[in-house]
Amino acid sequence: MAILTPEAILLQRYRAVRSRSLKLCAPLTAEDHVPQPLPEVSPPKWHLGHTSWYFETLLLEPSVPGYRVHHPRYAFVFNSYYETFGPRVARTQRGHMSRPTVAEVLAYRAHVDAAMEQLLQGVLEPRQRELVELGLQHEQQHQELLLTDIKAILGTNPLLPAYDPDGRSGVDLSAEHDGTCPPLDEWVQAQAGTVEIGHAGPGFAFDNESPRHTTYVGAVQLRQALVTNAEYLAFMADGGYTRHELWHAEGWDWLAAQTQRAPLHWQPDPAQPGGWLHYTLQGPQTLEGTAPVTHVNYYEAFAFCQWAGWRLPTEAEWEALAPRFGWGRRWEWTQSGYAPYPGFRRSTDASGEYNGKFMVNQQVLRGASFATPPGHARMSYRNFFHAPERWQYTGIRPARDVAASS
Amino acid sequence: MAILTPEAILLQRYRAVRSRSLKLCAPLTAEDHVPQPLPEVSPPKWHLGHTSWYFETLLLEPSVPGYRVHHPRYAFVFNSYYETFGPRVARTQRGHMSRPTVAEVLAYRAHVDAAMEQLLQGVLEPRQRELVELGLQHEQQHQELLLTDIKAILGTNPLLPAYDPDGRSGVDLSAEHDGTCPPLDEWVQAQAGTVEIGHAGPGFAFDNESPRHTTYVGAVQLRQALVTNAEYLAFMADGGYTRHELWHAEGWDWLAAQTQRAPLHWQPDPAQPGGWLHYTLQGPQTLEGTAPVTHVNYYEAFAFCQWAGWRLPTEAEWEALAPRFGWGRRWEWTQSGYAPYPGFRRSTDASGEYNGKFMVNQQVLRGASFATPPGHARMSYRNFFHAPERWQYTGIRPARDVAASS
Amino acid sequence: MAILTPEAILLQRYRAVRSRSLKLCAPLTAEDHVPQPLPEVSPPKWHLGHTSWYFETLLLEPSVPGYRVHHPRYAFVFNSYYETFGPRVARTQRGHMSRPTVAEVLAYRAHVDAAMEQLLQGVLEPRQRELVELGLQHEQQHQELLLTDIKAILGTNPLLPAYDPDGRSGVDLSAEHDGTCPPLDEWVQAQAGTVEIGHAGPGFAFDNESPRHTTYVGAVQLRQALVTNAEYLAFMADGGYTRHELWHAEGWDWLAAQTQRAPLHWQPDPAQPGGWLHYTLQGPQTLEGTAPVTHVNYYEAFAFCQWAGWRLPTEAEWEALAPRFGWGRRWEWTQSGYAPYPGFRRSTDASGEYNGKFMVNQQVLRGASFATPPGHARMSYRNFFHAPERWQYTGIRPARDVAASS
Amino acid sequence: MAILTPEAILLQRYRAVRSRSLKLCAPLTAEDHVPQPLPEVSPPKWHLGHTSWYFETLLLEPSVPGYRVHHPRYAFVFNSYYETFGPRVARTQRGHMSRPTVAEVLAYRAHVDAAMEQLLQGVLEPRQRELVELGLQHEQQHQELLLTDIKAILGTNPLLPAYDPDGRSGVDLSAEHDGTCPPLDEWVQAQAGTVEIGHAGPGFAFDNESPRHTTYVGAVQLRQALVTNAEYLAFMADGGYTRHELWHAEGWDWLAAQTQRAPLHWQPDPAQPGGWLHYTLQGPQTLEGTAPVTHVNYYEAFAFCQWAGWRLPTEAEWEALAPRFGWGRRWEWTQSGYAPYPGFRRSTDASGEYNGKFMVNQQVLRGASFATPPGHARMSYRNFFHAPERWQYTGIRPARDVAASS
Repeated sequence: MAILTPEAILLQRYRAVRSRSLKLCAPLTAEDHVPQPLPEVSPPKWHLGHTSWYFETLLLEPSVPGYRVHHPRYAFVFNSYYETFGPRVARTQRGHMSRPTVAEVLAYRAHVDAAMEQLLQGVLEPRQRELVELGLQHEQQHQELLLTDIKAILGTNPLLPAYDPDGRSGVDLSAEHDGTCPPLDEWVQAQAGTVEIGHAGPGFAFDNESPRHTTYVGAVQLRQALVTNAEYLAFMADGGYTRHELWHAEGWDWLAAQTQRAPLHWQPDPAQPGGWLHYTLQGPQTLEGTAPVTHVNYYEAFAFCQWAGWRLPTEAEWEALAPRFGWGRRWEWTQSGYAPYPGFRRSTDASGEYNGKFMVNQQVLRGASFATPPGHARMSYRNFFHAPERWQYTGIRPARDVAASS
Repeated sequence: MAILTPEAILLQRYRAVRSRSLKLCAPLTAEDHVPQPLPEVSPPKWHLGHTSWYFETLLLEPSVPGYRVHHPRYAFVFNSYYETFGPRVARTQRGHMSRPTVAEVLAYRAHVDAAMEQLLQGVLEPRQRELVELGLQHEQQHQELLLTDIKAILGTNPLLPAYDPDGRSGVDLSAEHDGTCPPLDEWVQAQAGTVEIGHAGPGFAFDNESPRHTTYVGAVQLRQALVTNAEYLAFMADGGYTRHELWHAEGWDWLAAQTQRAPLHWQPDPAQPGGWLHYTLQGPQTLEGTAPVTHVNYYEAFAFCQWAGWRLPTEAEWEALAPRFGWGRRWEWTQSGYAPYPGFRRSTDASGEYNGKFMVNQQVLRGASFATPPGHARMSYRNFFHAPERWQYTGIRPARDVAASS
Repeated sequence: MAILTPEAILLQRYRAVRSRSLKLCAPLTAEDHVPQPLPEVSPPKWHLGHTSWYFETLLLEPSVPGYRVHHPRYAFVFNSYYETFGPRVARTQRGHMSRPTVAEVLAYRAHVDAAMEQLLQGVLEPRQRELVELGLQHEQQHQELLLTDIKAILGTNPLLPAYDPDGRSGVDLSAEHDGTCPPLDEWVQAQAGTVEIGHAGPGFAFDNESPRHTTYVGAVQLRQALVTNAEYLAFMADGGYTRHELWHAEGWDWLAAQTQRAPLHWQPDPAQPGGWLHYTLQGPQTLEGTAPVTHVNYYEAFAFCQWAGWRLPTEAEWEALAPRFGWGRRWEWTQSGYAPYPGFRRSTDASGEYNGKFMVNQQVLRGASFATPPGHARMSYRNFFHAPERWQYTGIRPARDVAASS
Repeated sequence: MAILTPEAILLQRYRAVRSRSLKLCAPLTAEDHVPQPLPEVSPPKWHLGHTSWYFETLLLEPSVPGYRVHHPRYAFVFNSYYETFGPRVARTQRGHMSRPTVAEVLAYRAHVDAAMEQLLQGVLEPRQRELVELGLQHEQQHQELLLTDIKAILGTNPLLPAYDPDGRSGVDLSAEHDGTCPPLDEWVQAQAGTVEIGHAGPGFAFDNESPRHTTYVGAVQLRQALVTNAEYLAFMADGGYTRHELWHAEGWDWLAAQTQRAPLHWQPDPAQPGGWLHYTLQGPQTLEGTAPVTHVNYYEAFAFCQWAGWRLPTEAEWEALAPRFGWGRRWEWTQSGYAPYPGFRRSTDASGEYNGKFMVNQQVLRGASFATPPGHARMSYRNFFHAPERWQYTGIRPARDVAASS
């Protein structure tokens, strides 16, 4: 039996990850690849190009002698936010670009893939292998964004089309709104004391998950079940969106600017006064009461917990207890602001722009979602979004302090 | 020899106009039909749908018993600004819609066309014939917008693609930047006195061209030739964009917010320091000195004239003298604010929303452009845009007062 | 009997105008001199300083050898919009300046007045006398703004204080809301034909009132009485603010952003459900039905006329007929956009910034108001404001076309 | 010797705190009490009124039978952000109010003080005494804001006046820019381990300082000396404001919108090219190299530390080590986002709006500043501001991790 070289293993993985991106876009029309209905959304073809540019720029250009970039302007078109790599299309303008077309972006992918295949058939230095892995992890992150951005594109469209009626994406879409949930009264408990959190290795992790370090967690309980749609509807029915004392001041201001008081992608059910539909990737669906609520922002998650007499966990509490509850269906808001771990040093090269420069004014989310690619989730994973954002598959896990006397 | 009925003539015309819209979009990719890079631009597929909705809503629904709208949501998607016809996608959101796709819009057009064919094979009442004609004139206006919006979509794209390299649109693109021009020192003169302006009939005209009425024009000269690129470059070279005394206060403020001081669609020529290229529908081209300058807004047109010692004509002066000079290559800014003619009454039905409700804070432009559909131009035509807008084929015709003694 | 020299006459007039500005501010507290509650409002002490800076800059500095400016930074503080005279405090920041204090501004006025007294006791060249006159006319314009800006400062204050309970200003405040009005069914008529409009001399006029010139006016009637509060209330009661077909598209958008649907300075009357109070300079008052409505903008004036079956006059119609009706209580919106008269040449020195650079996107208003200083009104006077503005004493005079057959 | 009752002690303290607020405003002109040059600044007379409203609303109205509010509209004028107490003037409009005047606000203070004197001469319940104390602590917080807001009002004025040339405020202004500083190479070190932080009592603390709780701090060093002006100038000279790799992405965007790249209140020194002046409350001063830099925001503090190879401390590190270094001259940015302590419960009455509702998207600052009232500083004090804000006396304390092996 032949033993695979590290490069051969990486090549297999490269092919698997890259082809999955294409599969996610397979159900789309050419037109679906273009718009940017919210500033935080990127057009699908931009995701396809950007993830290729990443390999071209971090690996092929520096590592492959004589490599010629596929198109001299694509670095301008597909750079996301890397100051290191020069000027780029403003983020808010991504949806203004009809060109390169989907076909041209696919040709770009093919060009990059051919060169990467060749590179991966040789012998790489460790740092190069690391960069390939980083590129693949990066592409997997964009696969999650592809699904949420597609949902935003189709879900804000007046026609509310389903994403993948023919099952071409390979994604189990029923998992998005599946109503299976653990009992609502089961909690897991941490005893007060020091714990270790952060990436323990082996295997890949992003820089923001390190160094692994000691921290202290008080006596706390986290609930087995995420907050359900039925629970969230009870909050709404009890005036949750009209009671200022439940909200952050900033959340209250955010609320004043909204036209609808419900999670994103909800809409009034014309067939049932006072009822709501959830626009899912399978089209509008009746809300499943036992499914975990999603598309709530940090303000909403916080207000719900204030109303329920609970609170959101910190990321340390979450990581300490995660082995003891089920997770992976929603990105779970924590009350931890996104900051460097003790001992974290931001790299001074391009990879220093990956995570470190965003460590202010964002909240950490833990877990994963139905849209997270298989194999990409990790207990030490630190996702982060701004408090008002809710186009991701966010959710709420209740936490409660354990009285000292108990 | 058979004599054609009015309906038969209208049907021929209907076919010709409708098919031309499709031809204008023939060179586009599906992706090109989607974006809206400026708030005033509409996506090409929106134009194709909106012009069909217009026939469906004003003619088919009220006139054809049993007519079923093609899709219940298209009225929401394709209504532009008609309060009479209910809610609609916000103008700034048109570029956020990937659906209906181009193919679906074409099916919509086919559905409407089939019903219109049938309608036009019967006998129509005069008001119905008028509405068909209005719908066709409306579609021709959108044909001009299609070309300027396509130019905006492709011309703000980092790849600067040419619109129609294979000549599928049927448009003579060389006319856009053709350098033929009359001598720069030939002027035509009006004697002071009363003149009649406005639509004199017969034939179609928009409501804003009526009533024909008497007005007074002083002794004035208008130049045969429009301002050329060479003249405009001289203005720029003489500090035109840096001398406040040439500008309206509002224009000076507009200028402060610009990153480039040149007409829209100009860009520095990398091959020639200080030189400029003009992005045309054929791609970037060296500026033709003798071609009429275009894509200047009202502020720029005014500042140029201040610099040159001339002024812009009024719309009455323009209409009085138009028979004596060549026009039709650029929409010519006038110093007349867009206001109703004496005796104008805004209709209280939907057609009252066509022109009348825009009669404030816009400038009248006269003439036509290379992008105006054949047969659509008229000496009494009153086009109108906001002072800062310049994505249309605008231009400048010099005027000068004749001293009383001469 | 001694004959007064032109300079002596000018000196008397200088004293009268300058002291009136102080009198207008006499009822104010120091604090009232500071705020800028709307971007278009200037703080009273800024008006007092700016009008002094005007004399200092246009006359004393160039004309008086050895004149020393009162304070080296006041040119920065008190320049309004003159690019010719260099940088200045941004217009929106005027209300951020507590210094110079009222006392310091008064000292500045005294300094300028002393130098002007001296200058006016000598012999001036004609151009200098013109500039003194321009400075006085300029100050009179600011006297009207002082009253409207004071009304804005006090009228947006939660305490709604009266301006001048002790009568220190010398202004007859009852004239603001006096209900005397001519019969509502009396109209004056112009026969169709050419008329002369513009300043005919002798006496002072602003450059924008010249040259006097011929224009043409159709057969039209203007009403003796301005639109009254009672008429405007009837428009409101008939759904005037909810019927899109009465409004400009731009006005309809403006309306969507308003929290209250009534003229500025109106507020619901707590003592009378559905009733309105008018905040006047004497404090909140019950609306006088027969008083001319005021504080309406161009959109409201237009919508009212659409509703009533009338229209707004053009400025030529207004000037042609003004000798035959009473005017002077409100600035009357016309449907004429503010543009140069035929033959107008904008001066290239500072005075060219006075009027000419504003000739775009504003509407001409004719007449005068109760706040206009005595002796400042003129039949050829062209006031101008932006369509949405309504903090001035604006009003509506009905016009209607006379059918050709009549 | 008479023993003072708790009420008598409180009354003495009440008089001392209240009179200090008046003293801080004593050097101001009436006009200085009015403007709001930045949205985060409040006019001085608003501070004077708001702190009185606080006593009136939380104590006098509920506790004193028959108490009549001084003015029925003052609750609207002087409520800051308490949803519990109903509508109020929008924060951005505070600078638009000339009324109540300074004299009227002082009368309001006198009215409240008289009632409070009477109240404090009786016997209070413990909760009432707590509320008096809270009101005094609240007023002390506003005393710090008074000084920073006055600095903003005078420091953005083109005349740059000094605040208190006659020493009427009783504040030692030289402390603002005093250059005394500890040696730059002295650091204090914490051993890794658990620590207790939070208010330990006895004495007053805000709710956000509790509960005292265990947390974990790694091995870290904090520097005795704050970052000095000289050090910050070295950062600037080394391109600190032009090197993206030192900045948060959000900080880099903030920077792009700035016109000057230096701390707030710095301005180019006209006498020394490349040099800077610091506008202080004593007027513009030459920068003292050894004085602690101030008026930097979180982005600047972070970028400086990136450049220097240090980092900002966490609030736990700060509190653990504070007994071992000097503090109190600047509010020191920490890298801790403002979040509730474990076990914190937001009160459901008005006091729940004091701190809890702001616990998102702000950074904790520790220490105190020269503007903090005597006796108001506390080691457990948690101040908080938004990352871009820098009108407070902020500063930077270097931290560095201690390698595990050392």
